[in-house]
Amino acid sequence: MSDTTAERPRSAAQEARIDLSHGSGGRAMRDLVNDVFLSAFANPALAALEDQARIPLADLCVAGDRLAFTTDSYVVDPLFFPGGDIGELAVNGTVNDLAVSGAVPLYLSCGVILEEGFALADLRRIVESMARAAEAAGVQIVTGDTKVVPKGAADKLFIHTSGVGAIPAGVEIAAGRARPGDRILVNGFIGDHGVAILAARGDLALQVPIESDTRPLNGLVRALLDACPQVHCLRDATRGGLATVLNEFAESAGVCMEFEEAAIPVRDEVRGVSEILGLDPLYYANEGVLVAIVPESCADRALAAMRAHPAGAQAASIGEVTAEPAGRVVMRSGFGGGRIVDMLIGEQLPRIC
Amino acid sequence: MSDTTAERPRSAAQEARIDLSHGSGGRAMRDLVNDVFLSAFANPALAALEDQARIPLADLCVAGDRLAFTTDSYVVDPLFFPGGDIGELAVNGTVNDLAVSGAVPLYLSCGVILEEGFALADLRRIVESMARAAEAAGVQIVTGDTKVVPKGAADKLFIHTSGVGAIPAGVEIAAGRARPGDRILVNGFIGDHGVAILAARGDLALQVPIESDTRPLNGLVRALLDACPQVHCLRDATRGGLATVLNEFAESAGVCMEFEEAAIPVRDEVRGVSEILGLDPLYYANEGVLVAIVPESCADRALAAMRAHPAGAQAASIGEVTAEPAGRVVMRSGFGGGRIVDMLIGEQLPRIC
Repeated sequence: MSDTTAERPRSAAQEARIDLSHGSGGRAMRDLVNDVFLSAFANPALAALEDQARIPLADLCVAGDRLAFTTDSYVVDPLFFPGGDIGELAVNGTVNDLAVSGAVPLYLSCGVILEEGFALADLRRIVESMARAAEAAGVQIVTGDTKVVPKGAADKLFIHTSGVGAIPAGVEIAAGRARPGDRILVNGFIGDHGVAILAARGDLALQVPIESDTRPLNGLVRALLDACPQVHCLRDATRGGLATVLNEFAESAGVCMEFEEAAIPVRDEVRGVSEILGLDPLYYANEGVLVAIVPESCADRALAAMRAHPAGAQAASIGEVTAEPAGRVVMRSGFGGGRIVDMLIGEQLPRIC
Repeated sequence: MSDTTAERPRSAAQEARIDLSHGSGGRAMRDLVNDVFLSAFANPALAALEDQARIPLADLCVAGDRLAFTTDSYVVDPLFFPGGDIGELAVNGTVNDLAVSGAVPLYLSCGVILEEGFALADLRRIVESMARAAEAAGVQIVTGDTKVVPKGAADKLFIHTSGVGAIPAGVEIAAGRARPGDRILVNGFIGDHGVAILAARGDLALQVPIESDTRPLNGLVRALLDACPQVHCLRDATRGGLATVLNEFAESAGVCMEFEEAAIPVRDEVRGVSEILGLDPLYYANEGVLVAIVPESCADRALAAMRAHPAGAQAASIGEVTAEPAGRVVMRSGFGGGRIVDMLIGEQLPRIC
């Protein structure tokens, strides 16, 4: 196939581009929705072509007693990067924002803002990636929206996904529940997504073989909750990185998060790039990093359960919750010293997700 | 610290602008969210500052037996226009997409994509407008997201809202339920939003005193369902206009929608502008127009109920559902002739909503 495409002119399908009529609400939009979205996301709620999905509340009630509802928009640049693309990111990110409440993620929405002239083939590739990610995470994309703006009014493509899920009865996970004595766990390497995006933009003079860690965390959260139903706090460390999540926990609970620098899983390549650029891996965005605060009584069981799951093979216990200094995060180095680690101030890298 | 900020001249606050750090996930974003969004949308689910809102499923089950879930993004240009702004539009549009399923709209999400350099005062004005619209519609904005892209990567501000609601037991509204003999009702003037946006862009040489019809339709839908619980189809005629909604009903149900040209409520000013520009009011986007297909047996009651509601004062019966030509929309003129009215082909006006 590749040798013949090199010799013949690009086919009409390859050159097809989004135009303003695809956002008109009329025939062209309907055809695009049918052709690209409905075929990829195939499910009855979406296929009904109503302005809203309709789902029996009983389907949620069998999974839990509370609705979890979240939203995110995705503006990552570039759209395709090592280890993933904006479509996969948009599904996994919203799945993860549901999962960290302990919810079973169930249904997602998908809205796209397209720049006039965007290649239809790229849209199709992104939507198919969303469909695969949804299947992998066990969720359905049941409602959507398509807007097109004139050339120059948006940069190629933005996606927004919202999600609903059900939180099982008895699960009580909140940032404010961290208590002195609790253990701090992470599921794996930090910084991969940030460095992968940096590398994909060509901002690095050097080649770095790092892929984004984008992945759904709901399976891992389920395994963790099975092993330790009393998990106190869970969050995925996206924008702002691990340092920002730990600060959020510390501030919400009025406790101190104390961790060992040497215990943080960081790949050598990520560490190397960070040293060259003068960036701190603690602030890199991640797309598959789970931070868990668990009571000491089940910390070892929780860690073992995470390590037994594919998304937690590099899980580590990185520190513990202490009483003082309240509201702060303290990093201990090998020399026994400690320094306060603040939230991200300023901006390390725009359009990271 | 606060005393020095209090001393700052007012112009500094007026001139404050969004920068990339406001989308970083770190301290600046947290401050912006607290300052602008949480204070305006004040409610416990949002104030918990978790990555997702958590709502007792029992709160939904008292309102219905099915979840309605919808999403829309808003890219309207300009952001402020006669009769409304993008914020009000983003709330009303999603409320209406829930309402036309018969659902009681309950909870909304709010995501914003901001262009670096956007005036903070304008963001505040838009968010306050969203808060007022949410209160007017009886919904809460319970979860959100903020992204900032570099200057030139988006045009000022885009908003996406998703919404959840509960559909009362027994309510069965779907585009495919239209049946020959049913009556076609609309709640009021068509075309106001489209013409208001045209005028606000300065695309018209003439001054037109027309305001957008953006408004929540859930109260009107409730009144309609109380009068006629057997409503067959409901949709708000946004992008693509009345003609497109009628075509969707005709195609879904395999019936013909036959209406009288003279029965369509159109303001003289809208008719005048349309004649000058050669545009057809049937295709203008609306933001407060409800189209209802109701059984003949309760059509008069339904019409009276709509007229008794502030959002339906100009309600009219515009035609009826017939068997043939199946899947088509036919407009009858005063001369007794009929012509097929297709869905919107192409694009009348980009960035209308």
